[in-house]
Amino acid sequence: MRALLLDGALRRRDDIAAPAPAADEALVRVLRAGICNTDLELARGYMGFRGIPGHEFVGRVEAAPDPALAGRRVVGEINAACGACLQCRRGFQTHCERRTVLGILGRDGSHAEFLVLPARNLHVVPDEITDDEAVFVEPLAAAFEVLQQVLLPADGRCAVLGDGKLGLLVVQVLRSAGLDVLLVGKHAAKLRLAEAWGARTALADGGLGEPFGLVVECTGSPAGFGRAVTLTRPRGTLVLKSTYAGRANVDLAPIVVNEISVVGSRCGPFPAALEALAGGRVQVGPLISARFSLAHAKEAYTRAGQPGTLKVLLRP
Amino acid sequence: MRALLLDGALRRRDDIAAPAPAADEALVRVLRAGICNTDLELARGYMGFRGIPGHEFVGRVEAAPDPALAGRRVVGEINAACGACLQCRRGFQTHCERRTVLGILGRDGSHAEFLVLPARNLHVVPDEITDDEAVFVEPLAAAFEVLQQVLLPADGRCAVLGDGKLGLLVVQVLRSAGLDVLLVGKHAAKLRLAEAWGARTALADGGLGEPFGLVVECTGSPAGFGRAVTLTRPRGTLVLKSTYAGRANVDLAPIVVNEISVVGSRCGPFPAALEALAGGRVQVGPLISARFSLAHAKEAYTRAGQPGTLKVLLRP
Repeated sequence: MRALLLDGALRRRDDIAAPAPAADEALVRVLRAGICNTDLELARGYMGFRGIPGHEFVGRVEAAPDPALAGRRVVGEINAACGACLQCRRGFQTHCERRTVLGILGRDGSHAEFLVLPARNLHVVPDEITDDEAVFVEPLAAAFEVLQQVLLPADGRCAVLGDGKLGLLVVQVLRSAGLDVLLVGKHAAKLRLAEAWGARTALADGGLGEPFGLVVECTGSPAGFGRAVTLTRPRGTLVLKSTYAGRANVDLAPIVVNEISVVGSRCGPFPAALEALAGGRVQVGPLISARFSLAHAKEAYTRAGQPGTLKVLLRP
Repeated sequence: MRALLLDGALRRRDDIAAPAPAADEALVRVLRAGICNTDLELARGYMGFRGIPGHEFVGRVEAAPDPALAGRRVVGEINAACGACLQCRRGFQTHCERRTVLGILGRDGSHAEFLVLPARNLHVVPDEITDDEAVFVEPLAAAFEVLQQVLLPADGRCAVLGDGKLGLLVVQVLRSAGLDVLLVGKHAAKLRLAEAWGARTALADGGLGEPFGLVVECTGSPAGFGRAVTLTRPRGTLVLKSTYAGRANVDLAPIVVNEISVVGSRCGPFPAALEALAGGRVQVGPLISARFSLAHAKEAYTRAGQPGTLKVLLRP
């Protein structure tokens, strides 16, 4: 099959064997895949991943242990858990000690014609959601994770740092929860999107006024952390969503002095994301910057890495 | 009066005017003061403090707005709050936007013969508590702050990093809450103290086994943070108590990937600390390394800064 392969460098290949599903796995034909900042970080060495990258996708089930799944259009949770370790027994399957993660850790991903995932990871996509929209279920679920982890501030004020793909999804999720959201970003066009969704906006280099009880850091850069700490008021909560290769040089003292809680946040609930998309409560169409065929996957990565680009989609 | 003065360098002076209490303040004659790591950090430039350092003390009230306080032996909360700002109205007086902090921020401290504090900051010390012990009320309250901020892990296992003064107080507080505590430190003699209090111990350079649902970082060094992150299990809580001048070079990705909560923790409840000392549930005698007179305060700071030293006390 055709696929993108990361083995030190990114290579497009047409001679990769299609994956063979294990007994509990489904074989999925990829209809559409997305390129995430994490994929760009993997290409830079984050996690030391070798294999086919990609964890955002919508696909059609070609074969599955449960025949009822065959032929269905699905999205898939990316953590394949063992079900038996301490974390799994505690209910934290996304933190399974022996997990593989689609296109990130020990499991080939979605930037290919086919992928395999445990059948229990799959969610059928309602007809109201288009293929393009369904690709956003995974990152939108990650945005909903914020609501699962923190108490919302009593004064309803919160700030999101970073006007990239994830930041713009988090803005919509926080707006859907009724919060007064300030998006801090660098790109006027992206800030205008957020304004259309009812958020206030500010350029990152300006003064930002009173600090916030809830700040969500989505800049994807080491510099964002210090700025987010400064924006968080005493006893407030800073949700950290950015992952990147490399280290940050940070002053930890304000976290202690202001007794801030920094909450790391990763994968989230697929059902919440599917419901929000099916109900039209979150808009992802404006987040699509470009579409490439899998044959031009390397060009797609280049485009995805250009400043200002939002989601780049791949089709087989 | 005699005092230690920090104005770029540390100087012992005998010609400082005794402080004049404002209408809501009490004048306190210092009976005993302690040297905290924060004082050593102030001397290195942390917070840019200029004035008389010191925030740990027990003293006798010489004059107070409420005559009932006169002559009483007291300890004092170090944050002098305005009572009117947003943080004060939210009940977070220790985070008052206009606060002064004894010997740390805009207010002369306890390494002197006299100090002033708002009378509402003072707590009368029960007779069962000696002067030496009472000096530990402030740092012990900071140790109790951990119990106010986090949920205790269901499996009862927790780890404390750093076998200094604060770490040894935190160990006792967590033991008093019934937890199974592992203290990770560098000094065999200090680890033996913790063992006598029922903690398990390990040297910092060894393997530490399974990660913990609750980790308290008390090393006072930038390197401690990364180690503490590694010791915290997915979805666990890392309480950050160390403050120091300077920045830490940290890999933030494990916080996101493991969805760890990092909780900054500073000043805590004086009543809990007074009760624990009066009831003999926390032992501070073994934490006293040396006593100096205020006349030899500079030598006392030198001693306090030597590796392995625990609490150094100052008397007038």
